[in-house]
Amino acid sequence: MPIVNIDFLEGRTLEQKKEMAKRITEIISEVAEVAPEVVWIKFNEMKKENFSTGGKLKSDN
Amino acid sequence: MPIVNIDFLEGRTLEQKKEMAKRITEIISEVAEVAPEVVWIKFNEMKKENFSTGGKLKSDN
Amino acid sequence: MPIVNIDFLEGRTLEQKKEMAKRITEIISEVAEVAPEVVWIKFNEMKKENFSTGGKLKSDN
Amino acid sequence: MPIVNIDFLEGRTLEQKKEMAKRITEIISEVAEVAPEVVWIKFNEMKKENFSTGGKLKSDN
Amino acid sequence: MPIVNIDFLEGRTLEQKKEMAKRITEIISEVAEVAPEVVWIKFNEMKKENFSTGGKLKSDN
Amino acid sequence: MPIVNIDFLEGRTLEQKKEMAKRITEIISEVAEVAPEVVWIKFNEMKKENFSTGGKLKSDN
Repeated sequence: MPIVNIDFLEGRTLEQKKEMAKRITEIISEVAEVAPEVVWIKFNEMKKENFSTGGKLKSDN
Repeated sequence: MPIVNIDFLEGRTLEQKKEMAKRITEIISEVAEVAPEVVWIKFNEMKKENFSTGGKLKSDN
Repeated sequence: MPIVNIDFLEGRTLEQKKEMAKRITEIISEVAEVAPEVVWIKFNEMKKENFSTGGKLKSDN
Repeated sequence: MPIVNIDFLEGRTLEQKKEMAKRITEIISEVAEVAPEVVWIKFNEMKKENFSTGGKLKSDN
Repeated sequence: MPIVNIDFLEGRTLEQKKEMAKRITEIISEVAEVAPEVVWIKFNEMKKENFSTGGKLKSDN
Repeated sequence: MPIVNIDFLEGRTLEQKKEMAKRITEIISEVAEVAPEVVWIKFNEMKKENFSTGGKLKSDN
């Protein structure tokens, strides 16, 4: 039942996504005591011009 | 006031989106007793490499 | 795989949630052609003071 | 710590995003009394066919 | 059409929410050139034990 | 910059949250190559009557 959403800036490789999906699922399954099959993970890739910290878009840094 | 967000894998047609928007709005309007105009629905289409169940990306299945 | 999130103001009954869950799942399963088991729905109930339209909290209307 | 997510239809310019990021950060920092650096803002641009009000996709209006 | 979601730690007053709702709506309406009525804002208050930065829950700091 | 949101049914202990926050931050920091400080994690606890799979609320199972 855990639903995980991860927002990050675009640029991560397929390999990085695979590894995050695999290892985060293992942790949640182990710690929250649920079957791995019910851990669903979504990645949401953002363009730099769509993310701001301190009032500044990342595309401006 | 109801705000609905629906995440699914990409590949649905415009017709499928139209039909889901129409029918889900009808149900919520009827059951929650609100005007259809205040039912807002967002669709969020995900690439297969951005969705994982059981620790595996959908692009790997 | 579809994940549905529905935000609404608190005050809906358990019966209303049951009916929305059942009927929205049926529609998505039928239209998007997925098994009902992979349609996951979350309800998120908001207090009136946590929702604003037109710059005004609902608790002020 | 405030995390702001803003969904809107695509078509806003980079300048509009910059100005919204800057001014919304200032307000939250001032009113919620937090440093601007911990105000994170994400913009999520939607295609017209992915947003519906009153049961109709915006691409149909 | 803009939908704004703001996550923050609980503890803000009703007055702070009112002011943020009012002023953020004004900015978005002005900059994105939409009527204030279609700017919808949700506040999501988190308990300190439900928010982590740097691997530590806020309730532990 | 990664922002993680984890939805699960209520009932997890503070210890479980601590451990998930710590270990998920380590993985993301390592794999995505970002400082742990910019990994922000939110937990969202749902009541059983607010989560449905297969058209049935968890409170009915």
